[in-house]
Amino acid sequence: RTLASLIVQGEDRIGIVSAVAAVLSRHRANIVSLDQYSDDPHGGAFFQRTVFSRDDLQAVLPDIARDLDKQVKRPYGLSYTLRDLSVPKRMAVFASTSDHCLLDLLWRHRRGELPVSIPMVVSNHAAMAEEVRGFGIPFFHVPSMGPDKSAAEAEHLRLLKGNVDFVVLARYMQILSGAFIEELGVPIINIHHSFLPAFIGAGPYAKAKERGVKLVGATAHYVTEDLDEGPIIEQDVVRVTHADTATDLRRRGADVERAVLSRAVLWHAEDRVIRNGRHTIVFG
Amino acid sequence: RTLASLIVQGEDRIGIVSAVAAVLSRHRANIVSLDQYSDDPHGGAFFQRTVFSRDDLQAVLPDIARDLDKQVKRPYGLSYTLRDLSVPKRMAVFASTSDHCLLDLLWRHRRGELPVSIPMVVSNHAAMAEEVRGFGIPFFHVPSMGPDKSAAEAEHLRLLKGNVDFVVLARYMQILSGAFIEELGVPIINIHHSFLPAFIGAGPYAKAKERGVKLVGATAHYVTEDLDEGPIIEQDVVRVTHADTATDLRRRGADVERAVLSRAVLWHAEDRVIRNGRHTIVFG
Amino acid sequence: RTLASLIVQGEDRIGIVSAVAAVLSRHRANIVSLDQYSDDPHGGAFFQRTVFSRDDLQAVLPDIARDLDKQVKRPYGLSYTLRDLSVPKRMAVFASTSDHCLLDLLWRHRRGELPVSIPMVVSNHAAMAEEVRGFGIPFFHVPSMGPDKSAAEAEHLRLLKGNVDFVVLARYMQILSGAFIEELGVPIINIHHSFLPAFIGAGPYAKAKERGVKLVGATAHYVTEDLDEGPIIEQDVVRVTHADTATDLRRRGADVERAVLSRAVLWHAEDRVIRNGRHTIVFG
Amino acid sequence: RTLASLIVQGEDRIGIVSAVAAVLSRHRANIVSLDQYSDDPHGGAFFQRTVFSRDDLQAVLPDIARDLDKQVKRPYGLSYTLRDLSVPKRMAVFASTSDHCLLDLLWRHRRGELPVSIPMVVSNHAAMAEEVRGFGIPFFHVPSMGPDKSAAEAEHLRLLKGNVDFVVLARYMQILSGAFIEELGVPIINIHHSFLPAFIGAGPYAKAKERGVKLVGATAHYVTEDLDEGPIIEQDVVRVTHADTATDLRRRGADVERAVLSRAVLWHAEDRVIRNGRHTIVFG
Repeated sequence: RTLASLIVQGEDRIGIVSAVAAVLSRHRANIVSLDQYSDDPHGGAFFQRTVFSRDDLQAVLPDIARDLDKQVKRPYGLSYTLRDLSVPKRMAVFASTSDHCLLDLLWRHRRGELPVSIPMVVSNHAAMAEEVRGFGIPFFHVPSMGPDKSAAEAEHLRLLKGNVDFVVLARYMQILSGAFIEELGVPIINIHHSFLPAFIGAGPYAKAKERGVKLVGATAHYVTEDLDEGPIIEQDVVRVTHADTATDLRRRGADVERAVLSRAVLWHAEDRVIRNGRHTIVFG
Repeated sequence: RTLASLIVQGEDRIGIVSAVAAVLSRHRANIVSLDQYSDDPHGGAFFQRTVFSRDDLQAVLPDIARDLDKQVKRPYGLSYTLRDLSVPKRMAVFASTSDHCLLDLLWRHRRGELPVSIPMVVSNHAAMAEEVRGFGIPFFHVPSMGPDKSAAEAEHLRLLKGNVDFVVLARYMQILSGAFIEELGVPIINIHHSFLPAFIGAGPYAKAKERGVKLVGATAHYVTEDLDEGPIIEQDVVRVTHADTATDLRRRGADVERAVLSRAVLWHAEDRVIRNGRHTIVFG
Repeated sequence: RTLASLIVQGEDRIGIVSAVAAVLSRHRANIVSLDQYSDDPHGGAFFQRTVFSRDDLQAVLPDIARDLDKQVKRPYGLSYTLRDLSVPKRMAVFASTSDHCLLDLLWRHRRGELPVSIPMVVSNHAAMAEEVRGFGIPFFHVPSMGPDKSAAEAEHLRLLKGNVDFVVLARYMQILSGAFIEELGVPIINIHHSFLPAFIGAGPYAKAKERGVKLVGATAHYVTEDLDEGPIIEQDVVRVTHADTATDLRRRGADVERAVLSRAVLWHAEDRVIRNGRHTIVFG
Repeated sequence: RTLASLIVQGEDRIGIVSAVAAVLSRHRANIVSLDQYSDDPHGGAFFQRTVFSRDDLQAVLPDIARDLDKQVKRPYGLSYTLRDLSVPKRMAVFASTSDHCLLDLLWRHRRGELPVSIPMVVSNHAAMAEEVRGFGIPFFHVPSMGPDKSAAEAEHLRLLKGNVDFVVLARYMQILSGAFIEELGVPIINIHHSFLPAFIGAGPYAKAKERGVKLVGATAHYVTEDLDEGPIIEQDVVRVTHADTATDLRRRGADVERAVLSRAVLWHAEDRVIRNGRHTIVFG
């Protein structure tokens, strides 16, 4: 018996939960977890994540999808995604020179904590090639070539298109063009090395030191064209003091960054995160 | 439009979610929040909390209950509770001489943060009578009368029976007899002034100081005959250092106690906590 | 034997700690706690907090001060403050309509957790008069009188001057003029209802909801003419989710606000906070 | 200019801080950080950590030590340790099959976050040999040989004696004999996979699941003959829910374990931890 996830979202109306559950029940699927959220009790946006188990899941998924089209999608005007959870999402990781986020993801993957496959790590620096390949994961070096990113981005698209389901920027210090994001067409998760919206942009630890804050933090978010403005998936902070130097802040921050990014990746991999305009719904 | 909560629990079987949702849909109830949990994907125990809105809720609740009996309770062998959330649960608070947990509950209630009514505060000390009555809440002084608790417990039962839906022990330092708990017949929530199962029993802060721990905590749990063994609802901790005296630990601990107890009471009041043997399911 | 605190600050030079300790030793004072910090190991700013005990402290403090002038202040060009810790600082609290921060301070004070006296609570609303006086504390109502604050500020100065050692703005929603701050001449502590520098200004919970953050926080800081820019004393955050409404955020935030403000006030009262330009040194 | 640490401890008496500071001042040492603690203001135990900088530190340390003997040790009956902080402590790591704590230490060491040298990793399993050596660190495989540990412990002593300043048990699942601990004669730090004193002994995550706790934690402590009873250095917890399986708890716990152990090792390496009977003083 394997598990599948079903995400349903759209305009809230009476009867949606019932219609979805009826389809699953008819196909002898056992619901093992269901979370539902409406952002307004009187007709707002509707979000539902259902995980169910079923024998011969692969064989029956097309039938379930056909019924969902007929009983849920069309009558209620909802969209849905249905996925066999035994098929891991394919995740590419982009990194530059900082290794803490990258290594944390590779370690957790090797320990079996992240239900993804990692077909490639891409970096604008060659430094981490050997270490990445030591994890049995392909490494591609695509150097940055100055302000014109089009050649590098074309190379990125050649590597990624058709091969990955989402991309993680693990402290990848290059800005992606709007055209690239659109052309790529899969979700991109970034770790911002501060507690957004505080200290937007570069050098957050120097800014935090300058401002004398007592906490530093990190934010994982989906990448949109508006830098630092994409929907937030997860955030956390850690306590610091006047005695912490900018280097100390960066180290404490690095611990939060890798923890926050790992959680965001796990939740994305498990279909726990639903995008809703500038926000996310995260079913814990 | 008012809200109702529906808690369903029992043995997990295919079709329960669908059967429940079908009943609600048939009665034009709009599901605003649904959480479901099975402790084993292949047939374990099933727990579901559903909150729905409906015009004329009071009028239609008996009909919904009748349908739930017919469509859910009997065919699936489940139990359920159905409650109009606009009717607050009636909460009695028991206190002794410590006021931090009691006052936190009274403040939050006055601020509108706790959806309960408080028909009475009962104490074995008279000291807080004036302060409690200043909140507009009746105060009853039932002195402890030595090792034989039967007279005091009889008085407690006279006050409570039929008048309250649950009882909160807000640092009430008297032990309740098993007979009293059974006779009372409503849930009792206690705040244990330590992070259970560490430092079971009396004097946890002295023990924590003695042991040199770096965190102290508190635990809110349902009361059972086995002292310190009832199902845990919520726990939290706070950081301490070698420089904290036993008095400091008690103060830091008091802050955690009132925070933990308030959260447990809120969740209980909102029907978010389901007891399952020695454990609880808490739908966040 | 009572305790005194000695704060020394200035330019770091070799021998300061020794000179201070020699003075205390000569006067048979027993150092019970000493914290020292230099913001640059090779000659930066120097900060030291020393707590010592001595019989007949009151009698001997002038002698110690004379020696500190001679052995520490003049030769090293340092400034210092020397204070009998058994004499509580006099704290005025300003409040508007929110009561959570005010009540938390009054309640901790009554429990003996805040080593201050509270000669007055001042509010631009009369609503909390009875409650405050119930704690045995004088309450003064100074209504806001439109955009011209000069009359109200003159009244504030009449009440405060000579009577208080510091002022706490416990969710006091009026802006203080630079002239008032200067004329008052004592430290003012404010609680900003967000995690500065995120969500500067009014309505931070609405902004936080709009931005979809996963944590909300609060900041206690000293008041300067630059609103939201004074030196930060303490900050903390609390986790929230997509399901929290703006009202929920405000409630969760209120819990953090009162906790953060109480800690900042305690630390200020115990001379643990040293201002250094835009920052603070907080000796834990 | 390099840094040195000076730890002084003993019975509290008036004048100690002054005597220590006078010695340092006479040798033109600049105190960059000083923390002092007495566990009883009226004559208890005294603990002081001082970090100072000095040109030609190596050359002058013997002179400082001689003066400390004369001015501090003998007249006040105190003990002290004086150490050049530019000489890293030599740390051996013992591991079994769990790699999360070991890898976190090796990775932090490589990033320059842990001021130690690592002359060896010792394991009763060969599995991690290649990975450890990939960090440029010697790996020794000393198999467990049944209940009689004497042969393995003899081999351990041959490897360790004279070569290391402290030992870290990074989820090393073998019990050390009292004779071994004594013969080794250097501090041993262990990570206990629970929040002591809760869930003492083996299988804490299963016990935590069984008990239905809402937090799991970890404890780093010095090893003594009394298992699970050594002085606690650091503890932390992480929130869990009813929906977390025992596997989930173990994973969440592994994150806390490596964080707690890394902090304990860092603090030990920086001489921030002073043992005092069953407790520790940790200067943050």
